Parts: sequence; C-alpha cells; structure tokens
Amino acid sequence: MKQFFSVHDIPSLSEAVKTALACKTNPFQNEALGKHKVIGLVFLNPSLRTRMSTQKAAMQLGMQVMVMNMTSDGWALETKDGVVMDGNTAEHIREAAAVMGEYCDILGLRSFPGLQDATEDYSEELFQKFAQYCGKPVVSLESATRHPLQSFTDLLTIIEKGNYHYDEVKKQYIPQEMKPKVVLTWAPHVKALPQAVPNSFAEWMIQAEKDGLLDFVITHPEGYALKEEFTQGATITTNQKEALQDADFIYVKNWSSYENYGQITCTDASWMLTLDHLKETNQAKVMHCLPVRRDLVIAAEVLDSEHAIVIEEAGNRVWAAQAVLQEMLKNK
Amino acid sequence: MKQFFSVHDIPSLSEAVKTALACKTNPFQNEALGKHKVIGLVFLNPSLRTRMSTQKAAMQLGMQVMVMNMTSDGWALETKDGVVMDGNTAEHIREAAAVMGEYCDILGLRSFPGLQDATEDYSEELFQKFAQYCGKPVVSLESATRHPLQSFTDLLTIIEKGNYHYDEVKKQYIPQEMKPKVVLTWAPHVKALPQAVPNSFAEWMIQAEKDGLLDFVITHPEGYALKEEFTQGATITTNQKEALQDADFIYVKNWSSYENYGQITCTDASWMLTLDHLKETNQAKVMHCLPVRRDLVIAAEVLDSEHAIVIEEAGNRVWAAQAVLQEMLKNK
Amino acid sequence: MKQFFSVHDIPSLSEAVKTALACKTNPFQNEALGKHKVIGLVFLNPSLRTRMSTQKAAMQLGMQVMVMNMTSDGWALETKDGVVMDGNTAEHIREAAAVMGEYCDILGLRSFPGLQDATEDYSEELFQKFAQYCGKPVVSLESATRHPLQSFTDLLTIIEKGNYHYDEVKKQYIPQEMKPKVVLTWAPHVKALPQAVPNSFAEWMIQAEKDGLLDFVITHPEGYALKEEFTQGATITTNQKEALQDADFIYVKNWSSYENYGQITCTDASWMLTLDHLKETNQAKVMHCLPVRRDLVIAAEVLDSEHAIVIEEAGNRVWAAQAVLQEMLKNK
Repeated sequence: MKQFFSVHDIPSLSEAVKTALACKTNPFQNEALGKHKVIGLVFLNPSLRTRMSTQKAAMQLGMQVMVMNMTSDGWALETKDGVVMDGNTAEHIREAAAVMGEYCDILGLRSFPGLQDATEDYSEELFQKFAQYCGKPVVSLESATRHPLQSFTDLLTIIEKGNYHYDEVKKQYIPQEMKPKVVLTWAPHVKALPQAVPNSFAEWMIQAEKDGLLDFVITHPEGYALKEEFTQGATITTNQKEALQDADFIYVKNWSSYENYGQITCTDASWMLTLDHLKETNQAKVMHCLPVRRDLVIAAEVLDSEHAIVIEEAGNRVWAAQAVLQEMLKNK
Repeated sequence: MKQFFSVHDIPSLSEAVKTALACKTNPFQNEALGKHKVIGLVFLNPSLRTRMSTQKAAMQLGMQVMVMNMTSDGWALETKDGVVMDGNTAEHIREAAAVMGEYCDILGLRSFPGLQDATEDYSEELFQKFAQYCGKPVVSLESATRHPLQSFTDLLTIIEKGNYHYDEVKKQYIPQEMKPKVVLTWAPHVKALPQAVPNSFAEWMIQAEKDGLLDFVITHPEGYALKEEFTQGATITTNQKEALQDADFIYVKNWSSYENYGQITCTDASWMLTLDHLKETNQAKVMHCLPVRRDLVIAAEVLDSEHAIVIEEAGNRVWAAQAVLQEMLKNK
Repeated sequence: MKQFFSVHDIPSLSEAVKTALACKTNPFQNEALGKHKVIGLVFLNPSLRTRMSTQKAAMQLGMQVMVMNMTSDGWALETKDGVVMDGNTAEHIREAAAVMGEYCDILGLRSFPGLQDATEDYSEELFQKFAQYCGKPVVSLESATRHPLQSFTDLLTIIEKGNYHYDEVKKQYIPQEMKPKVVLTWAPHVKALPQAVPNSFAEWMIQAEKDGLLDFVITHPEGYALKEEFTQGATITTNQKEALQDADFIYVKNWSSYENYGQITCTDASWMLTLDHLKETNQAKVMHCLPVRRDLVIAAEVLDSEHAIVIEEAGNRVWAAQAVLQEMLKNK
C-alpha cells in the first residue's frame, strides 16, 4: 500500500478488518517489521486520538516516531504553484514534503479544509501534493474531505460488535443472521465542521453494503446533502425518525452544509440524539468519532448509557492504524 | 499503586525514598518492567522539569512515552457535568480521559488551578475525574493543590543531603545525630502563584516529622496561611527570622493568599532569601522547586553560593518519578 | 568533542566529512554507542529540518530523544546577570541549562538573534551561557550568528556531488581535476533574516579553501557585507554576474544588513537566482538551506530544474548531525 487516503486504497474490506483484529489479538507480532524505520506524523491541525493511536500503532510495529506540529513548531506552507512567495507562507509544500520524505519511511499528514471554497477543499491539493512530492507512502490522518483511519475503525468496530463470522473460503465476513442496519445521522453543532468524517464514513459503508456486510442509511436535514460522489448508492432521507427505525448502529456526526458551502443552515435541536430517539431502534449501539459535545450533538444520557460504544471505538483506532502501517511496511 | 496524587498514596516514606535512591544507583535495573508499556504525559500547562524528568524515568524503565500538549496540540476540556457544550470546550473530560486510557498503561496529568475560586480548585475535580474516567493508574504532574513528585523529590534530597542511615530492622531512615530542621518560607513574587507546591511540601514534611525524620517549621507573612488541612500539626510562625534560626534546610517558595484567594496581599521584599538570612542558620542548604526568579524570590548571591542545592534537587526529580512509575508497573 | 558551535570545533574538515559519509553508508553501525543515553533538543524557535534530522541521527545512534519547545511548552528565559527578575522571564538560563544538563547526556539548542542589537547578538550570550551552565556537550541547532550543522552538511554535499577522492595517506579529500568554484550569493527577501547561515557557510568554505578543497567567492549588494571575522580571506564582490561566472556550486541565501543591523536595505529583485543567472556557470548546482520562498529568493524554474540539489542537501543534514553526535558519544 503506497497511500491510505480513501476506501479505494483497500483491496478488500474484510481482509483489512481481519488484519486489524489480528493486530488487536497480538499487538507485538510484527514488531520486527518496523525496526530501523521512522514514521513522521505531520500535524497542520490539532489531534488527540489520531495522534496517540497512530503513534502507538507505529511503536507496536517497532517503528520510531517523529511528530512535527507545523503550526506551533514550524511555519505556514504554500500549496499553490506559480506564486511569488512574498506573503505569509515560508515554505512550499514541494520542498517541505520532499525534505520530510528524506527523513521518514512513512509519513502521516493531517490537514483540515478551509471551508471557504468547496472546489479548493475538494481538490485535496495539499494532501495530493504532499504525497506526490514526499516520495514515500503517506497515511491520511484526516484530510480536507476524508478521515479514512476513522472510517476503517468504524467498520472494524461494527464487525466486532455485530454478529459476524469470517468465512475462510470466501475470505470475507458474513453477518450471522440479519445484516445490521447502520444509520449515519446529522446532529447539531455551534461551529461549522468539515464533511470529512461523514464523507468518509459513507464511502466505507457503501462499499461494505456492496460487500454484503450491512445495510446503510443516511439521514440529515434539508440542505445537508453530502457531495454526491460520496453517497452514490446510499439510501438517503431527511426523515430521521424513519431512518432510525430498527437501527443496529447509529453513527452521529455534525457537518456543515456542502450546498451552502461551509455554512450552518440548520440548528434544529431535535436532531440531537437522545434516549427517546433510540426507542424504536434495535437497541442500537451509538458511535461517534469524538470529540463530541455533550447535550449538543448527543445527549449525555446516551453517552453515559450502554448504547454508547464511543470509547471502544476510539480504542480501535490503534488497530486500524496498525493494519495500515503494517501493510505499508510489508510492501516496501 | 493506582494513583499518585498526595502523600497519602505512599505507605512508607522511608521505603519510597529507599526505592528512589536504588533507582539512582542503578537506573536501568528494572528496564524490562516497562517493555511494551506506554505512558501518556498530558499537559494542560507548561512544564520543563516535570516533563523531562518523568519522560526520562519512564524511558529508563523501558516504557514508551507519548506526550500530549492539550493547549497547543489539542483543545479545551469540559469538566462540569450537566453542561450543554455550546461554548469553548470541545471535549468532555469523561471522553478525553477514557480515550487516553485506551492508549496508555499509565497516565500523567498536569493542570494548574484557576486561582479564581478556592472551592472549585480545592475540589480537584479535573484530576479526580481524569483518574476516574481513564481507568488506568494516574500520576499527578502537579494538580490544582498539590505537586507530589516535587515533594517526594524534596524529601529524597533532604535525606540524601542530611546525615541519615537506613535501619534495616525498623525499615526506616534514622537521623544520625540531631534531626535536621526544615523550614518552609514564603517569598515575594510579582505573579499570583498556586499553593500547590507549599501545600504538598507541608503534607510531606508533616508526615516525615511524624516518622521521626526531621523537624518542620512554616513561616509566612500575615494573610498567607495555607489551607489548614495541609498544615495541621506543623509549627507555624510569621516571624521569619525566628523560623530560620538554626535551620538545616530552607525551602523557599512564593504562593498567593489562600484566605484572600489567589490575591497578592504582601510584597514585602525583606522576605526574599539573602545571604544575610542565612547567618544564623546551621549553614542551611537552600531548596526551591524551580523555576525561580533571581533577586525577587531568592537573591542571586544565594543561588550562586554553596548553600543552594536547587540543581541537584531538580536532578532528583528523575528518581522520585522512577520510583513511582516502578511501583505502578509492579502492581499491574 | 565537547561543543559543536562553529567550524573551529572540527579538527579536520576532511575527516569530519568522511565520518558523515560513513554514517550515510551504514546508518546503524554505531547504534550501541548511544544506548541508555539521552539527547535533549531545546527549541527557542521553530525548526523542521534541524528538528527531524537531528532526532533521526540520534535515534540511529541508539539514543533516546527528548524535545523541549520552550515557547509553547515552557516559558521565557532570562540571560542577563544581575537582573531583578520581576518582568516576563520566568527562569534564568543558569538554572534552566543546569537542570537540563541533569537530565541529558547531550543537549542541542536553537535560538535566533533578536536582530535589534548587533553587539548583543554577536556576543552569543545565550548559547555560551547555556553551554557553560548545562555542563554537558552542546550541539548548536542554529544560534544567533552561526548554523554549523547546516554548514557541515553543505560541505559534505559539495564533496559528495563534486569530483573528489579521499587520499588515505594525506587523510583528506582531493579534488579530481579543478577545484570547484563555490559562490555564496545574497538574494532578496521580504523579512529581515539573521546572518547565521551565511556567516557559518563563509567560515566553513574559507577553511575548506585553506584545505585546498575548493575556491570560494561571496557576492552581495552594497551594504550587505557580513561581519569581517566570518569572511576574512574570502574573495568578495558586489558584481553578482562576475561572481557566478564558471561557478560549480551556488549557495543562495538572503540575510539582513550587518552594517545597518537587522535592516533590509536592498530589495533589488535582479538578485533572485533565475535560469538566466546560470547560463555562464559551469552547469552550477544550486544549494539553499531551506525553507526557501519560491520566485522571491530563487526562481521556481531553478528549484524545479536539475540544477537544484536542495532536497539531497536537506537529506544530508542527518549525516552531519550523526557524525557530530557520534564524536560526542565517543569522547565521553
């Protein structure tokens, strides 16, 4: 694997999940693989889970970790070509990426979108140029439009918590009885947030649906449709109540409007997930990528109930990251 | 040891000091103990000595270290329950702590008090909730009202520099001749500082006095009494000259008023420790937790004299931290 | 080696380059040397290449690395003696350095000049006091007036890219045919930058010229002469075109005026290096310490051409650092 940027970089979801669960069972089995290898984790934005889980995954593979916080410890990067650099950016991504490629065997990059210009954000220029110029395998630690380590973790958590068995002949997971119903629901927030997590979750769930692993539904208020390329093939409804009916897993997340790009066009508090919303579900398990604002996005009563699996979900970030890094180390 | 928050977490001061000094003699003796274990050091406030010494202690025990600077690399945490999180805090301590517990075998936490509300600060809500929700052993890297790694170091330094022998039968240190006289004296400062260091030092010294290790006196101007729970049993005087008489160790520290909470009510420069103050002492050794402002808190002439043992004291931070982490690793 | 601050700390340039190239050939040959040793990298200013390359070099020598970002994770340091510390500085360099010396076997320090007062900057007070008080070997990670790890790298890159053989009897590198012509040229910038990189490069190249390794020329506009102690013995001209004639290596760098200290007195864009400037060179290789502002300091067309060796140059930072640390570890 030369890049981990989206679901399209994974040949088989079932195989990827199996690898991650094997890492969970035996975290140090491949500790020799990363000996004398260095991963550089480059943060253009804050991070807690991604930072710590990826670091831990790399260490369990025997790698050395170097963290580079560009904002506090470095400087602003230029991504545009043909620009006279007489402004605020001190270094071009062409040089910065290439230099970090000289020092690292694998690189991870986190960079959020500006939420000002959809075309610019969805071009993923920064991530793509970084990957191109560094010349080394690159793991997305969340980019402008996707958060694949989170989505991989989410799928892994659904398979782990659902009732599945792995079929050795077909080389894929099979739901034991009924396929679980997975619902992605929008929730309110006071800040305009990126679409990266829901885009990415939708991409992964649609592929999982195609692989026969689950049924997938998206629900959000009018004006909150995600960009079509991420949701093609998904069942989408603005009726949250209907969507949640019989749900097994509910993935709660706020995002800002794609249509009115980066805007907050709905503040309807009834979309916040409460215990009441769970009544007609199949004792649904509630997921969220975290950080989550209590009693704004999800009711505290839900987060403190047995429905919530957000902590185990966050814990699983290690195993998804480890599976990805392991593949990158093996293919080198 | 499941928590290191105050002197009450230590069954025997003498045994703890003995362990720390054994670490100093042979730093890598227990290097196998921390293999494949991770410590997470979480900073909500700046740190130099605590950061570096704890990191070094952990590495000498064979642990991996992950540092999380919440302010620069993360975001603000909510500690109150029942709050609609529509303000500046992006994540609740319940989730943040639990998630970090997923990634780490031991956690360290530094968080200073707000100095606005004594009840809030002295509730130690943040530390206690962090410890409760992370589900792993937690080391205080200085909390709102205590700095136990510093106090452990201070005791260790007094025993090392004083004239003691360890009695193998009684399993405790015995002063060779007279018990040393240890004096905690307030000193001036231009900023309002927490009471954590003096509170903690008092707690440890009072216990050491009970154990027959030393005699302890506190001196400060009117209006600077520490909270009673920390000083019960101590000799306290507002007469600095009298207190310093025949002192063997002088622990200098500024703190803001507890009574007029968080206020600077005295700026009397005569409380700054000078060589003149040392004349009627027993060639006292001068200690301070550092950082220290020269010629404001302690005269430069003292810091540059043979009285000062502040550097060796700071160096001993490693061994106190290592003794604590070692106990935590052994009890797991 | 007790200190790496300038070219004068290196007994033989040829031997130093040979050691660095041996590290490049076999990065882990001396991995046992740094076992149980700790390097502390102390940053008072931002850093990317220096941070990552020195960290990597230390890890390849088996050392543990502790990074201390004083600005974001610590506090401001006082360097003046005899000051009543009632202002913004929370700790004196005497204590801070000594304490870090307690925790580390080798220390690295980065600190930029203030560019307000030449005498103060050129006294190198901060670096010298840090080295004096920490009591351990110190590597400059760029100080007020020099950047020796960069200059060592630059020499190493010139020898690697030029046509040299190493004479085992004379124990030095010999240019195969003609000695390469190395030109340091000033270039425009919008911010006032330190003279550290050009000072240091000049010092190293003048020594290299004395050692018969190359010919060295400096060119800059009127008013941009470097301080004489750094350029004594060098050929200096304000005629850039003449200087670049037949050049084999061109080292491009902006610096602010020394004469009008810290000022930008020239903004002549014709000094920016373009492909046109390279026409009468000997197919010159173009170097820069990075970060470089495209189309302001060096034309993008040059950086994207085969003339530019800035990435390999940055990559070589690892081997210069490793050679220095290795010597420090061996001499302990």
